[in-house]
Amino acid sequence: MEPLPLVDQHCHGVLREGPDEAAAFEALLTESDAPPAPGTRHFDTQLGFAVRRWCAPVLGLEPHCAPDDYLGRRRQLGAREATRRLLRAARIGTFLVDTGLPGDLTDPGELAAAGGGTAREIVRVERLAERAAAAAPGAAAFLAHLAEAIAAAAKTAAGFKTVAAYRYGLDLDPAPPSAAELRDAAARWLDSRRTDRLTDPVLLRHLMWSAARTGLPLQVHTGFGDPDLRLHRADPLLLTDFIRAVRPTGCRVVLLHCYPFHRNAGYLAAAYPHVYADVGLSLGHTGARAEAVLAEMLELTPFGKLLFSTDAYGLPELYLVGAQNFRQAVARLCARFTGEGSWSRSDADRVAALIAAGNARRLYGPGN
Amino acid sequence: MEPLPLVDQHCHGVLREGPDEAAAFEALLTESDAPPAPGTRHFDTQLGFAVRRWCAPVLGLEPHCAPDDYLGRRRQLGAREATRRLLRAARIGTFLVDTGLPGDLTDPGELAAAGGGTAREIVRVERLAERAAAAAPGAAAFLAHLAEAIAAAAKTAAGFKTVAAYRYGLDLDPAPPSAAELRDAAARWLDSRRTDRLTDPVLLRHLMWSAARTGLPLQVHTGFGDPDLRLHRADPLLLTDFIRAVRPTGCRVVLLHCYPFHRNAGYLAAAYPHVYADVGLSLGHTGARAEAVLAEMLELTPFGKLLFSTDAYGLPELYLVGAQNFRQAVARLCARFTGEGSWSRSDADRVAALIAAGNARRLYGPGN
Amino acid sequence: MEPLPLVDQHCHGVLREGPDEAAAFEALLTESDAPPAPGTRHFDTQLGFAVRRWCAPVLGLEPHCAPDDYLGRRRQLGAREATRRLLRAARIGTFLVDTGLPGDLTDPGELAAAGGGTAREIVRVERLAERAAAAAPGAAAFLAHLAEAIAAAAKTAAGFKTVAAYRYGLDLDPAPPSAAELRDAAARWLDSRRTDRLTDPVLLRHLMWSAARTGLPLQVHTGFGDPDLRLHRADPLLLTDFIRAVRPTGCRVVLLHCYPFHRNAGYLAAAYPHVYADVGLSLGHTGARAEAVLAEMLELTPFGKLLFSTDAYGLPELYLVGAQNFRQAVARLCARFTGEGSWSRSDADRVAALIAAGNARRLYGPGN
Repeated sequence: MEPLPLVDQHCHGVLREGPDEAAAFEALLTESDAPPAPGTRHFDTQLGFAVRRWCAPVLGLEPHCAPDDYLGRRRQLGAREATRRLLRAARIGTFLVDTGLPGDLTDPGELAAAGGGTAREIVRVERLAERAAAAAPGAAAFLAHLAEAIAAAAKTAAGFKTVAAYRYGLDLDPAPPSAAELRDAAARWLDSRRTDRLTDPVLLRHLMWSAARTGLPLQVHTGFGDPDLRLHRADPLLLTDFIRAVRPTGCRVVLLHCYPFHRNAGYLAAAYPHVYADVGLSLGHTGARAEAVLAEMLELTPFGKLLFSTDAYGLPELYLVGAQNFRQAVARLCARFTGEGSWSRSDADRVAALIAAGNARRLYGPGN
Repeated sequence: MEPLPLVDQHCHGVLREGPDEAAAFEALLTESDAPPAPGTRHFDTQLGFAVRRWCAPVLGLEPHCAPDDYLGRRRQLGAREATRRLLRAARIGTFLVDTGLPGDLTDPGELAAAGGGTAREIVRVERLAERAAAAAPGAAAFLAHLAEAIAAAAKTAAGFKTVAAYRYGLDLDPAPPSAAELRDAAARWLDSRRTDRLTDPVLLRHLMWSAARTGLPLQVHTGFGDPDLRLHRADPLLLTDFIRAVRPTGCRVVLLHCYPFHRNAGYLAAAYPHVYADVGLSLGHTGARAEAVLAEMLELTPFGKLLFSTDAYGLPELYLVGAQNFRQAVARLCARFTGEGSWSRSDADRVAALIAAGNARRLYGPGN
Repeated sequence: MEPLPLVDQHCHGVLREGPDEAAAFEALLTESDAPPAPGTRHFDTQLGFAVRRWCAPVLGLEPHCAPDDYLGRRRQLGAREATRRLLRAARIGTFLVDTGLPGDLTDPGELAAAGGGTAREIVRVERLAERAAAAAPGAAAFLAHLAEAIAAAAKTAAGFKTVAAYRYGLDLDPAPPSAAELRDAAARWLDSRRTDRLTDPVLLRHLMWSAARTGLPLQVHTGFGDPDLRLHRADPLLLTDFIRAVRPTGCRVVLLHCYPFHRNAGYLAAAYPHVYADVGLSLGHTGARAEAVLAEMLELTPFGKLLFSTDAYGLPELYLVGAQNFRQAVARLCARFTGEGSWSRSDADRVAALIAAGNARRLYGPGN
C-alpha cells in the first residue's frame, strides 16, 4: 500500500553541513540545552531509539545498529546525501517551514528540493518584531515597520507562528493592547537596547493580535519544548480567553505540540470552531509510544481539526522519525478501532487522510 | 449473558419532538455552541462514530451507515418511536435526572416510561436560586425562599447538583459565606436585575453549602463541558479545600465527568471517604477510547466509589452510546485484567456490578 | 530467567509487630487517613487486589484469596515470618530507607537483614529541623544545630529528602532565603512553640538549599500521597525555577512518585541534566495499570534518568507488590516494544536493568 501523503504543517530547516561529532548530533536529538547527565547519552531516549530504528536502514544499516556505527555511516555518506535519503524516505509532499530559527539551515526551497516536495513559509512574528526593532529609530517607526512587515509577510506566507509561550507564558492578558500601552511598551523595549529578544507581554499580545487580523492561521507553541520554557505556563487552556476574544477576527488558531496537555488541546478544538490541534513534537519524541499519544489526541479532537507535523529541526532524521512514527501510529490505531468494530474501514481511511494532509490543505488553502 | 443493569446517576431529558434537521441533530452531538468549522461536520468525532455504530442497528440500519441515512430513518420513525427504541436498547434501570436544563424536554416520568425504568430527580441549585430570585421582593425574602426551596427539594430529590464550574470556576473560597457577605451578595445580585443567571461566587458558595447541609449527595460539575467553561478552572483538585471543609456535614461529594482531570478525581475519591467520581461525559464522548479513559479512572478510584452516568441530554442516542461505551469498556477491561491474572473473575464481576449500579444504589439510597 | 535485581531508592520501615486487626492492616493499604466509605473497604482498590494476587502465594494461599483468609494466615505466621517471606520474595538488593516516619518500624539494618539485602539511609530534612528546634534555645542556636546535623548526615546518608509538598506546596519561592529572612523565620517558628511540625516556607526553602549544597541527591516528594496534600500544589513543574536555580550547586534532584503529573516529571528529566524521576507510589498503587503508567513515564524520561522505588511503608506487602508490579510492567513493555520492532531486544534488556538498578547505582554511588 502506498504510504499516506503528508503535509508537514510545522517544520524547520536542517543543517547544510554535518553535524559530524557525536555530541553535536546528539544535542539535536534532545530539547535540552545541556550535555547528558554523567553516565548517560541523549541516544538513550524514545527519540534516539526511533532514529536508530527508522533511519539506519535508509543509510544502508541494520535497524537498531549502534549509535556510533550510525554516525560513522552518516559521515561517510556526507550531510547532503544523508539528508537527501532521509527526506525522500519521509515522503512528505508539502513542507510549511517556520524560518524563524538561527543557524546554517536549509531554506524552504532547498528543503523542498531535497525532499522532493514543495514548501511554503510560516513566519514567526517575534522574529519580524526583532528585525523591525533593529532597524527602527524609535517606537513609532518600529510599530510602523512592524505593521508593514506583517502585511508583507501575509501576502506570501502560509501562516504565522508565535512563541509567546517561551518568551513570557500563555497566561497573557487576552485583549489587544491599547495604543497607549503599545507605544509605552515599544519605547521601553527599544530603550532597554535588548532588542535581540522580545519578552514584553504587551508586545507579544500585539504580535498575536496583528497576526490574527491578517486572516491567516496563527500557530501557537504550546506544551513541551526546550528548557527555556516554564511548561506549566504553556498549557493551551491558558489561551482560552484569547481564543474567545480573537474569534470575531476570523483567525484560526493552531495549537502546536500540546503534550502533555494534548487532551486539553483536544477540548479546545472541540469547543471552538476556529481552533485546531497539531501532533508535532509529541509523536516524534515519544517513539514507541506515539500510538498511545495520538490515541489520546483523538479522544475529543474533531477528526477535521487534527494536523500532522514533524517540528523537525537541524537533523533530517527528525523528518523521517516524525513521519514514520505518525504513519505507524495512525495505521495501528485504525486497525485497532476497525478490528473491534468501533470505526468502519472507510471511515478509518478517511480520518487518516484528513489528519495526514486533508485538514492542512483545507486550513492553509491552495498550494498545499 | 444479560447486560449489566445500570443506574444512570446523572442525565437529562430528551427532546419531545425532532430534531429533524441535520444541523439541529449535530448541534446536540457536540458540546460546542457553534457550527462546525468549514469543511467539517460534528458527526466526525468519536461520539459521532459511536452514534452510527451503536444506534443505527437499533433503528434497523447497518452499523456505520451514512449520517444522512441515519437521520432519514430517524425522521421516518418519528422522534417518539426512535426515543423508545434507543432508550429501551440502553437498558437503564434507574435514571437520576437533572431537571435544570431548559428546552422542550421529557420530564423524569416520561423518560422513565420511554426507557422502561424508574426515575428520580437531581435538583440543580443554581436553578432553585434563579427561581427564588425571580419571585422575591428583596434579599431577605430571596434568601428565605431559597432556603425553603432547598428544604422542599431535599424531601424528594435523590441529590443536588451545582454548576459552579460554569458560573465562576471551582477556585471558589471554600468556606461558607458569613450572613453579612450573603446578604450583601444577594442584594447586589437582585439589584443588578440579572437574575436570569447566577454567577456571584458568594451565592454559589452559599448554594453548595446549603445543599451539603441537607445530607443528600452533591453532584459537582468538573472537567469538560461546553465552551462556557474555562476548563483549567474546572479541575476537581480546586475543590480540595471545599471537600475538606464540608466533610463534617456528612455531605457526599460526587465529581461529575472529570475528564481530562479524571486521575485527579480518582485521587480525591481515594483520599477522602466522602468523595465519589463519575464517568459521565468522559465515556460517551470518547467513543473508541472509552476503555482507555475508564482504565485511567480505575487506577486510584476505589472500586466502591466510581459511578456510571451518561449525562445524556436532548438526544436519546446519547443514552445508548453512553451505556454501550460503558458496558463494552467494562467488559474489555475486566477481560484484560483477568486474562493477565491481575484480577480474579469473581472480583471483576463484582467490580463491574458496583460501578454499573451498586455504588449508586448505596449512595442514593432506597428507590434506586 | 532470574528476576531483575532491584535498588529500591525510596522506602520506609515496616511494622515490627502486627498489624493483627483488619482495620489496622487496611489503613496501611491506603493513603487516606479515614475509614473507608460506608459499604466499602480499602481492599477494593488496585493495590488491595495486587496484595491478594502477589502476596497470598508467598504465604501459602491461592492468589486472590479472600481478604480475611489472607489476614488470618498472616496472623498465624506472625509478623516476623510474614515480613521475612514477603521481603525475600521481593528480591530487592538495596534499600534506600527514608527514616523520617514515626511508628514502631524496622530500622534500615533490620529491614536489610529481613530482606536479604543491604541498606543505606535517606535523611528527611524536615525531621532534622524539627529535632534541632526541639533542642535549641533560640534561633541562632537552632540554625547552627541544623547546619551541623545536615553536615553530619551528609557523611553517611545516600541522599536527602524533602516533603515540602506536604508542608507548604511546591509553589515556593525558588531562591535561597537571605540571612535576615532566615533568622526571622526561625525566630517566628520557635516562638510559635509549634516545633513539632515545620510548615514555614522560608525554612523549607532553607532546608532544600542546604541539602542541595551537600552535593548528595535530593529526593522531593511530588504528586499524590496522603490527604494532607493539596495535589495541585504538588505538580513537579512548580519546581521549575528551583531546579534552574539549584543547578550550579551540582545538586541532583529526584522527583518522587510524580503521578498524575508523571509526564511533567518526564519533561523535567529530559530538559535538565540534574533531574531524575522515580516510579514510586505510582506503580504500587495502580496495580493492574502499572504497565500503562510506566509506559507514560517512558515517553520523555531519558532511560538513564528513571528510578525504581516502592515507597513501601508499614506493610512488607507493599515491597512485594511494588517490586512485582514494576517487574511485570517492565517485562510487558519491553515485550511490546520489541515485538513491534520499536526497540531491539538488547536495548530493552539494557533499559530494564538501568531502571531497576543501574541508574540508582550511578546516582547514589558506591555501596549500592
